[in-house]
Amino acid sequence: MKPFHPTPKTLMGPGPSDVPARILEAMARPTVGHLDPQFITLMDEIKTLLRFAFQTENALTFPVSAPGSAGMETCFVNLIEPGDTVVVCVNGVFGGRMVENVTRAGATAVVISDDWGKPVDPQKVEDTLKAHPEAKILAFVHAETSTGVLSDAKVLCTLAREHDCLTIVDAVTSLGGVPVKVDEWGVDAIYSGTQKCLSVPPGLSPISFGPRAIAAIEARVTPVQSWFLDLSLVMNYWEGPRSNSDSGSAKKSGRSYHHTAPINAMYALHEGLLMLHEEGLEAAFARHQTQHEALREGLEALGFSFLVEPDYRLPQLNTVCIPERVTDEAAIRKNLLEKHDLEIGAGLGALAGKVWRIGLMGASACPANVEQCLGALKQELG
Amino acid sequence: MKPFHPTPKTLMGPGPSDVPARILEAMARPTVGHLDPQFITLMDEIKTLLRFAFQTENALTFPVSAPGSAGMETCFVNLIEPGDTVVVCVNGVFGGRMVENVTRAGATAVVISDDWGKPVDPQKVEDTLKAHPEAKILAFVHAETSTGVLSDAKVLCTLAREHDCLTIVDAVTSLGGVPVKVDEWGVDAIYSGTQKCLSVPPGLSPISFGPRAIAAIEARVTPVQSWFLDLSLVMNYWEGPRSNSDSGSAKKSGRSYHHTAPINAMYALHEGLLMLHEEGLEAAFARHQTQHEALREGLEALGFSFLVEPDYRLPQLNTVCIPERVTDEAAIRKNLLEKHDLEIGAGLGALAGKVWRIGLMGASACPANVEQCLGALKQELG
Repeated sequence: MKPFHPTPKTLMGPGPSDVPARILEAMARPTVGHLDPQFITLMDEIKTLLRFAFQTENALTFPVSAPGSAGMETCFVNLIEPGDTVVVCVNGVFGGRMVENVTRAGATAVVISDDWGKPVDPQKVEDTLKAHPEAKILAFVHAETSTGVLSDAKVLCTLAREHDCLTIVDAVTSLGGVPVKVDEWGVDAIYSGTQKCLSVPPGLSPISFGPRAIAAIEARVTPVQSWFLDLSLVMNYWEGPRSNSDSGSAKKSGRSYHHTAPINAMYALHEGLLMLHEEGLEAAFARHQTQHEALREGLEALGFSFLVEPDYRLPQLNTVCIPERVTDEAAIRKNLLEKHDLEIGAGLGALAGKVWRIGLMGASACPANVEQCLGALKQELG
Repeated sequence: MKPFHPTPKTLMGPGPSDVPARILEAMARPTVGHLDPQFITLMDEIKTLLRFAFQTENALTFPVSAPGSAGMETCFVNLIEPGDTVVVCVNGVFGGRMVENVTRAGATAVVISDDWGKPVDPQKVEDTLKAHPEAKILAFVHAETSTGVLSDAKVLCTLAREHDCLTIVDAVTSLGGVPVKVDEWGVDAIYSGTQKCLSVPPGLSPISFGPRAIAAIEARVTPVQSWFLDLSLVMNYWEGPRSNSDSGSAKKSGRSYHHTAPINAMYALHEGLLMLHEEGLEAAFARHQTQHEALREGLEALGFSFLVEPDYRLPQLNTVCIPERVTDEAAIRKNLLEKHDLEIGAGLGALAGKVWRIGLMGASACPANVEQCLGALKQELG
């Protein structure tokens, strides 16, 4: 066995996306201690930058020390107690994963199903919330990574508030690519990933919890089933004694050890968030939209149709139906990867073999990638 | 806010340890997709190298995509079902954390306590196992990071077998620093961390499960409470359909998506394990012992006494009693960090303020570090 020197690939799947050299370089800086004041300052800056990205003032905003699936689980296990009822909207793979989280936490999941490729239907949500006044939480996926569909988080959060439900929102693929307005929409708990529109290597899951969610945690009568993800403990590490206000450096001395944070991964996240801050959210969203339009035009010229209607299509994740003349879609993806050093995504679950998912996430949303992708597809499709 | 350029520190606390430039460079290589065949090959090599480090043939040997605390939780939630009885040996902070894991998984913890600074007492374990024939699992910490004590894993595992108990062993601080012989000792489930004697940045938790542990997972009647840590799912990602034999590349096509692995962290772990393989286990253990002896001699000359008796003292974690003449131990640690760029560890829990923990883990176990530490301490203690 030898050191691993991967052949670089252009990453246009559903994540990870291309990681800029600047972020990789940040990740390789010397490891310092996780209780070193330098690192505590970095943690504070990451929290501030994540609040910017999530458009929130929530004090409890930080990255969970594990990938997005663990961020999802953090939201569910901290807010659910056994016997609770949770309304879960399922319109793709990740809504289904939410149901798994609900039942494993000892709660009842009331499932609202929408077709894969369609957004969550607010009318169904309203009807279900009316029919289930005992529901404590409404959970849905903002941007379904398995289909490329954007659901209307603002409308869904408003419905949840009207029915006195907390919201858990999956923003894994939306954060940094399309608007995610935690405070304006009244989101209670939200999680994301680093390897999508933030263009940071995978491994961390940014989360944000609002005051109503924190109140629910404080009112718990049963312990959180996961020690590693128990926010009442993790909070002490990230911000000192529990509080929804952040008085900054005064709290540093109060922080207590919980686990050892993935230090170098935090360096990378910090750098990626700095780059997003430098570009500005609106500019980043516009860039994703512009590159999406260039890609869409090219794909349609090649004969592709989109699975998702324009009104709720994610610019950063383009799900296209594989043309009938393609008899071996896996072989084409293999050729793209091996001959063109270009990764695109396969269909997941019910869409396996039927669609491709072409990502334009974070740094991958650039003209060079659009051109490379269109050129390679043209060549391979003949 | 600006890019984060930490002042490098010599890391002689209880972890993270110094990360060699070679490992940091590996971590900064281009991110590829987590289902890219290149990455699958890397995963296979990591499994092989971890088997070498754990001295095992266990097929189910891989790094959990989160820090050591999550590795601990992986072992407990996969092996425990509600109502089970687990005997837990507590002789420091991490034994106490095990108890938390047991109760949160719905099991009863029978606790065996030993003084902090002493090893687990095999006689108490035997008596307890006799008194609790219903016990399913014996859990203990091989190398207590809070005290610097090594317990006799071979003897404890033999006792567990004699009483038909599975074993869960915490090897966070032992792996790579002292012998960890999973197969020879008959360990059933074991977890470690990357940021101790492997000298890799924190963020992953190597684990290994033997045939008896896998049989227990297969016999479960309740689902694992954590979706993220459910080995029946994670296994499909790491090795294809569940099996305790590994037929290698034939399985690649069978692997299914579970979560996105922390790709660049895996590069770093691979490189760190390669370095351990190049050095050889015995040479690595001897290096830790030699540097420990040099440090011990110097510390004793400075008037320090050790908390732990030589017979069960960890070479890689030196817990010394703070001399009475030191009135402000925190100020000295602060001076070491700020003036000497040297991190040593504070006491944890009951030992806070009473001891320092001086690590010689992985790359930190070298003559330059020993000299720097002794020189700086001499200067600061006056």
